[in-house]
Amino acid sequence: MDAHPRPSDLDREVLVRCINECIECAAECTSCADADLAEPDVQDMVRCIRLCDDCSDICSTTARVLIRQTAGDLAVLRAATEACATACRVCGDECERHAHHHEHCRLCQESCRRCADACEALLAVIG
Amino acid sequence: MDAHPRPSDLDREVLVRCINECIECAAECTSCADADLAEPDVQDMVRCIRLCDDCSDICSTTARVLIRQTAGDLAVLRAATEACATACRVCGDECERHAHHHEHCRLCQESCRRCADACEALLAVIG
Amino acid sequence: MDAHPRPSDLDREVLVRCINECIECAAECTSCADADLAEPDVQDMVRCIRLCDDCSDICSTTARVLIRQTAGDLAVLRAATEACATACRVCGDECERHAHHHEHCRLCQESCRRCADACEALLAVIG
Amino acid sequence: MDAHPRPSDLDREVLVRCINECIECAAECTSCADADLAEPDVQDMVRCIRLCDDCSDICSTTARVLIRQTAGDLAVLRAATEACATACRVCGDECERHAHHHEHCRLCQESCRRCADACEALLAVIG
Repeated sequence: MDAHPRPSDLDREVLVRCINECIECAAECTSCADADLAEPDVQDMVRCIRLCDDCSDICSTTARVLIRQTAGDLAVLRAATEACATACRVCGDECERHAHHHEHCRLCQESCRRCADACEALLAVIG
Repeated sequence: MDAHPRPSDLDREVLVRCINECIECAAECTSCADADLAEPDVQDMVRCIRLCDDCSDICSTTARVLIRQTAGDLAVLRAATEACATACRVCGDECERHAHHHEHCRLCQESCRRCADACEALLAVIG
Repeated sequence: MDAHPRPSDLDREVLVRCINECIECAAECTSCADADLAEPDVQDMVRCIRLCDDCSDICSTTARVLIRQTAGDLAVLRAATEACATACRVCGDECERHAHHHEHCRLCQESCRRCADACEALLAVIG
Repeated sequence: MDAHPRPSDLDREVLVRCINECIECAAECTSCADADLAEPDVQDMVRCIRLCDDCSDICSTTARVLIRQTAGDLAVLRAATEACATACRVCGDECERHAHHHEHCRLCQESCRRCADACEALLAVIG
């Protein structure tokens, strides 16, 4: 981003943290949904899979929207970041329910929490 | 969706319309951003490209979230659909500025308007 | 695509058919993976879910690559289309195994077959 | 991935390296395409934007396919990884042409090279 000819005015540190968390959370959710499929109690993990799938898609898209610095629109950035914060909160809550018996859910929950926090911090900056 | 064992309770017609508009708008925005790149006045189309890229990503993700019927969360559906409505409105406004001299912008604007309307109709159903 | 200032030289009809099949197959695979999650025999549908997830991602990306007409590279188009044909064949084979008892698998299998055929037809044109 | 109940048999180190490079290259290509749009010579960067867009989409999808460990198909993994290697090579070549005057192209070229190498190493393991 330091190499961008005209970066956005948003606080760089807050923005980069949010991008990194979105990228990591997208990967973590794809991985958790996949690990759920291999669990003997897959039947009980259906809601976790569904919410991880949604969260992965939303985090991936939000990362792309936030990476772009050129000619962006604050209303679009805000809406994408809000959707991401919501998806991460809901998915984190579901993963928390399974965190004590599935290590991948514990890791995914932590990633969802960090990403939701980073989204909230960015929303405070966007205003 | 008729083949789904346990579809969601959302009004089927409103939901399917929104999914179809999201899918079409994602393709239209990818196409418009690409056509912009081939225009002699690409310099003036930078904001259109940026907003079409964002809108395409957000519409694609929203389509996926809405297609899924199993164990979903209304807060996530609402947040994704709101982000999509916003992206479509902002992108539609930008495309409208170029609609008189670029046919692909006129088509993309129309698709963005239809998708924003379909998102609003779905949001009214979600409540 | 008729509105594009400088479309590619590829046969329009073959290209548009492949784009449309990729878009439809991506949606069908997302829907089938989700319907699998709601089936009482979800345990037996794990491989179907996995392959539908892969196929949906690959079809979506291939659709985007093929929609773009400006300054493309034939090696990239060929590689993406080959990956798509492979994903559709493998996913179609798995869905076929469940087609007699899950209607969504029958529909998904048909969509995968049509998409694989459309990819092969495009590969013949790309050379 | 250490938390997965039944990970695939592929060499862990080679696989994780490839996933990480795909994720990083996807972000780098999205960023480079966006930075190109802000350059005064955007007219000359059209092919770079196009190839970065394709490469970002293909790297993102390949990362997802490789992250999944459950019930995968080697032919699909191979095809996705081959498409990714091709996209990275072609995009890296284009970015190299601009590396001396655009720092973001130099960074993107390096990321594309590393990702292509990681894909080749994985393809050697897949066989």
